[in-house]
Amino acid sequence: MINLEENIRKINILNSDIMKTVQNRLDNLTKPLGSLGVLEEIVCRISGIKEEYFPKIDRKAILIFCADNGIVDEGVSSCPKVVTSIVTKNFTRGITGINVLSKLAGAEIVVVDVGVDDDINIEGIYNRKIRKGTSNMAKGPAMSRNEAIKAIETGIEIVSKQKDRGINLLGTGEMGIGNTSTSSAVSSVLANIELSLMVGIGSGLSNQALENKRKILSKAIEINNPNPNDPIDVLSKVGGFDIAAIAGAYIGAAIHRIPIVMDGFIAQTAALVATKIEPKVKDYIFASHGSAEPGSALILKSLGMKPYLDLGMRLGEGTGAALGFHILDAAVATYTNMGTFEDAHIEQYEPQIDTNFK
Amino acid sequence: MINLEENIRKINILNSDIMKTVQNRLDNLTKPLGSLGVLEEIVCRISGIKEEYFPKIDRKAILIFCADNGIVDEGVSSCPKVVTSIVTKNFTRGITGINVLSKLAGAEIVVVDVGVDDDINIEGIYNRKIRKGTSNMAKGPAMSRNEAIKAIETGIEIVSKQKDRGINLLGTGEMGIGNTSTSSAVSSVLANIELSLMVGIGSGLSNQALENKRKILSKAIEINNPNPNDPIDVLSKVGGFDIAAIAGAYIGAAIHRIPIVMDGFIAQTAALVATKIEPKVKDYIFASHGSAEPGSALILKSLGMKPYLDLGMRLGEGTGAALGFHILDAAVATYTNMGTFEDAHIEQYEPQIDTNFK
Repeated sequence: MINLEENIRKINILNSDIMKTVQNRLDNLTKPLGSLGVLEEIVCRISGIKEEYFPKIDRKAILIFCADNGIVDEGVSSCPKVVTSIVTKNFTRGITGINVLSKLAGAEIVVVDVGVDDDINIEGIYNRKIRKGTSNMAKGPAMSRNEAIKAIETGIEIVSKQKDRGINLLGTGEMGIGNTSTSSAVSSVLANIELSLMVGIGSGLSNQALENKRKILSKAIEINNPNPNDPIDVLSKVGGFDIAAIAGAYIGAAIHRIPIVMDGFIAQTAALVATKIEPKVKDYIFASHGSAEPGSALILKSLGMKPYLDLGMRLGEGTGAALGFHILDAAVATYTNMGTFEDAHIEQYEPQIDTNFK
Repeated sequence: MINLEENIRKINILNSDIMKTVQNRLDNLTKPLGSLGVLEEIVCRISGIKEEYFPKIDRKAILIFCADNGIVDEGVSSCPKVVTSIVTKNFTRGITGINVLSKLAGAEIVVVDVGVDDDINIEGIYNRKIRKGTSNMAKGPAMSRNEAIKAIETGIEIVSKQKDRGINLLGTGEMGIGNTSTSSAVSSVLANIELSLMVGIGSGLSNQALENKRKILSKAIEINNPNPNDPIDVLSKVGGFDIAAIAGAYIGAAIHRIPIVMDGFIAQTAALVATKIEPKVKDYIFASHGSAEPGSALILKSLGMKPYLDLGMRLGEGTGAALGFHILDAAVATYTNMGTFEDAHIEQYEPQIDTNFK
């Protein structure tokens, strides 16, 4: 087992010298100062992470962590539990949303079973099963503290494996029926936001079923009484193996200095966990989209992040992260390939610029 | 000369039968109902425009209309006027922002001189110069009504040319120093929004220069007194050849049933013009991004459109539209290539769905 604390100590801040040099080049490209907006911030950060003056993000992978959640026994989801296993297997068949969108973004997918309630023995799926699904958190802790740590360490390990094979841009994804429920519980406690505001329809619920979901989650938090100042306690009591592994992926990305694009609601919850464990992790994470789940915007605000895309999506699997890859590609491509003022035969493009407006 | 009124009569509504069939397939894809969010609306609309059950958008072009604006004489821009000509020429040299981002999106660019104040005789740039820049609208109308109509018809003609050579997705772009000024004036009058709210820093202005820009534009509107109920009157008095040609491009796209992606502030202003001329045009337009110019969000609201991207960009040239192409690609790819529930071996994925939540 990897030592989590020891690993976290390896995380460093971004390289600000390189970031300054990159911003300087951006300011000399043939465009009004600052006019590429967030694309400029993105490429500076990618450079600061990778410590490269001309960063490459040409080997992309979406990490999809799959796990079941005991809370599904309480009727919190419109989907039967078996869908977790079916969709996990379907990731290898090329027919899911993330298959299509990762292909479009030139990304591979890496599927990891961290707790599917089924025997998944398929080539191309990592078997890192902690257990066949968490326990029902409406009746007690979802998992033990050790299991939570093991799931986080699995995320770190999987990132390490991607680093070894040359992956230079990561995205997060998941599959797990019931994981909007666990995400609502974890994010409500960690961000100190009223639970009812964090609960949405997930894959689809009637008004009555949504009310039931709220009640069940409220009960789960009450029974388990997680400590909001201890992210691993919260994770183990009302979280899921997938959320834990994604949190580990962020930590792994920070350790190995690989930019990582965050998907929607579940991935955002995992980012809350990871940044509460180690705030430096935040600089390695890129927001992709705001999910249709109502908690998504609240978590992003709590994280101090602004999503690039606003498409009302709530599919999960890493589909938002895959769309986010196009934005990071655009940031790197403009920075790398646009001409400078000198190339453009333009002098003093900006005689009146006031840096307040930059 | 094309007859504008005759052309506008050719515009039809979208094919709702095809759109229903497409939505039906979307509802059978292996995902929670409605979970692709705006991507579903996008692909329905593309199908309804092109009247194809499986639409193709594999031949993309960004139309870049270039023109100078007489108002620049009043010091409303941080850039000297000559930059319009320089950047217009640079579009053929591959070093501008739109060169990089259109390439990334698999799109061509089509550069059209509709009024650059220079002799542009370069292969690969359409010469459709109405005049060498508009007149200074702080002293009188920017152009005559006939010139405005001619510029609109140029936009229609250029779209027709793209249709003939098989282009199946369009985006709008522009280059013209001073065109945030003309856009502020036109959109303020057409959307009936206070001018000061519509004026921003464009390519970069000091506080004092921004105040001057507001005053000059206020004077231009006062002197010309455009009729807010006559979009062509507004366009001719306080607009520009580029805005007029983009408005024509939307109309042309609607005539020829080609989806067209709208860029930022200037393109959004042109969409106000086009949809005031013929409201049916709106269904053919896809918003890409919200620009950093403060008027952008206000125009989008007035148009009843929500942008897909929020990146604080203000570069123009069609760069936002090029980024938007990736979103339309994602919409078509998921619809076309995802498996159905049957393919996915899933039954009754959504037993509890309440259509209110769809």
